[in-house]
Amino acid sequence: MTLFSYTCDATDSMTQGRAGVWHTPHGPLQTPGFMPVGTLATVKGLLPAQLRAAGAQMLLANTYHLALRPGERIVEEHGGLHRFMNWDGPILTDSGGFQVFSLAARRKVDDEKIVFRSHIDGTELELSPERAVQIQESLGADCIMCLDECPPAGESREKILAAVDRTTRWAQRCREAQKRSDQALFGIVQGGIHPDLRERSAEALVQLDFPGYAVGGLSVGEPPAAMYSTLDATVPVLPADRPRYLMGVGKPEDILEAVCRGIDMFDCVMPTRNGRNAMAFTSSGPVRIRNSQYRSDLGALDAECSCPACTDYTRSYLRHLFVAGEMLGPILLSLHNITYYQKLVRQLRDAILESRLQSLRSELLTRWSGAA
Amino acid sequence: MTLFSYTCDATDSMTQGRAGVWHTPHGPLQTPGFMPVGTLATVKGLLPAQLRAAGAQMLLANTYHLALRPGERIVEEHGGLHRFMNWDGPILTDSGGFQVFSLAARRKVDDEKIVFRSHIDGTELELSPERAVQIQESLGADCIMCLDECPPAGESREKILAAVDRTTRWAQRCREAQKRSDQALFGIVQGGIHPDLRERSAEALVQLDFPGYAVGGLSVGEPPAAMYSTLDATVPVLPADRPRYLMGVGKPEDILEAVCRGIDMFDCVMPTRNGRNAMAFTSSGPVRIRNSQYRSDLGALDAECSCPACTDYTRSYLRHLFVAGEMLGPILLSLHNITYYQKLVRQLRDAILESRLQSLRSELLTRWSGAA
Repeated sequence: MTLFSYTCDATDSMTQGRAGVWHTPHGPLQTPGFMPVGTLATVKGLLPAQLRAAGAQMLLANTYHLALRPGERIVEEHGGLHRFMNWDGPILTDSGGFQVFSLAARRKVDDEKIVFRSHIDGTELELSPERAVQIQESLGADCIMCLDECPPAGESREKILAAVDRTTRWAQRCREAQKRSDQALFGIVQGGIHPDLRERSAEALVQLDFPGYAVGGLSVGEPPAAMYSTLDATVPVLPADRPRYLMGVGKPEDILEAVCRGIDMFDCVMPTRNGRNAMAFTSSGPVRIRNSQYRSDLGALDAECSCPACTDYTRSYLRHLFVAGEMLGPILLSLHNITYYQKLVRQLRDAILESRLQSLRSELLTRWSGAA
Repeated sequence: MTLFSYTCDATDSMTQGRAGVWHTPHGPLQTPGFMPVGTLATVKGLLPAQLRAAGAQMLLANTYHLALRPGERIVEEHGGLHRFMNWDGPILTDSGGFQVFSLAARRKVDDEKIVFRSHIDGTELELSPERAVQIQESLGADCIMCLDECPPAGESREKILAAVDRTTRWAQRCREAQKRSDQALFGIVQGGIHPDLRERSAEALVQLDFPGYAVGGLSVGEPPAAMYSTLDATVPVLPADRPRYLMGVGKPEDILEAVCRGIDMFDCVMPTRNGRNAMAFTSSGPVRIRNSQYRSDLGALDAECSCPACTDYTRSYLRHLFVAGEMLGPILLSLHNITYYQKLVRQLRDAILESRLQSLRSELLTRWSGAA
């Protein structure tokens, strides 16, 4: 634990929000912090220097995707992901479990392992807790994840309970399989939207004493209110001296609400995926830049943003890029959206430090609704 | 002519090669100089700062494409291409003639004008010498081109002669149509691969006293030797105090040979198009990075290159990006190839300044053949 430590700088007075720093061997992540997603060891369309300039401190990469292409051996030959993808800040890899449960075909799960077929070429592959750790040790991220069982949204309580207990057993095996001491292995809380199952999962994992805890299985189709109440039930069970990571979330308002509930770390494809699809998050709400209303709009995409898309170009030019099918459109909007997300978590952090998170929350919700 | 001037710094002793500077209202172009192609007011996938860092001084944009999308009025509302595409260096626009002759459908040409249909939506449009100048004045590039008639490769001598004379008449009309004094209008020499027709075309245009001359209608399928001998016949007719621009050329060896024949300016889609298709120009010849031989290759794409693709990544990583269909692959190889082209023309310029172009020519041809 000497290589990793979480320090809490402030706790908001009216919410559970907290501001801190998570120290890793590749530098700090100020929290609340947002990790852009580099599925295949590249945040689509962006260079590391651009991500840095956008404020990103830590990236996420996907174990499942990288194990298939190029294979973890090739990444290992490079000395790990940092060298492979030229990112010298901290990196997190997921366990591959979520992708196996959502992408892979002909899946068979038992207590020992998951047998599945690659979504690319149909090759039969296996993922076990031990194998998930082994791949992640080859990839060499700073933060790695236990293999968890991710039941689909709307699964029965009985099956979610079974997944919780299997996830606990797998977490124990991951802990035992870990050989490297320079990677922080996080346990993943499951339990659907059942408060008691979330508590059960979190309590069991806390017994295993992980250096950090992730909350998985949310933002999978449940109503936002169910996600928020699930966090209300889960976060208080987690130890205050460890970082808390809400996996795959989410929209700006979800991040805001989760921060108010004590979450420290986030990742989501939304800024880049939406950016590629011509949707920009702005200080006054979403902008769909292909819309014909922007045809001759000489204004900035977001006058409050300092990214290249906003300072160097007009809405008219950005629209032109998308209408003409030019790569620079997705590049600029991805860059803008990541800048937007980084600014959002920085604003939330600053508000916690000054104990005014509640008033910022009201202000942001008003602005996003277009009412201000 | 006060806003534009060409100064010749050196002439190579054993070839017709010359090194100089062409001064424009948006700064100088050191010659020989290569202009990356930004067809739709964007060099595909690259930001202006990246082009600058790669050594680019001047860009090309396409009148035909921009007149269709977004339309020259929108560019004009921005104050011209420089502001629209955020490039503060010099810009050149072609006349649109080449695209009308190669891309547009149902084309009817007479002495007055060309009537054609948009390749995008079939709209009937017209292009005349006056209209070509008018559009280019709206786009606002530093260097603009006369409308020329571009006969297809292999056309009869009779038809090429007719195209030469029509191109001369159109050049006269372009000259008369020009209203702005802050744009240099170039005449375009035609004449296929017939030395006498090229001389006829060049002599007639020189009578019209343009601030610069382009050589069009080459690199359209003729053998390299025919292109070189055509330049041998054409360039000596052009005045020594004006820049000479070989349109749409070309491969590194074509640029080398054309520089040896006294050409100053080049543009070509090859560095970006080939880059998007996983082909890199390197100091030891072309590299097709998708090739399986690079799967575990931890070496640099080109050890002699200082671009981000070569200094920050391995061949193995670059191959991974293309195999995985990641945007960063085309971005990095485009950036590399433009860096390569800029370095090439800079090397040629330095060699002319030191009167050793002939020996550099031998050295480069040997290296590219893979023999060194």
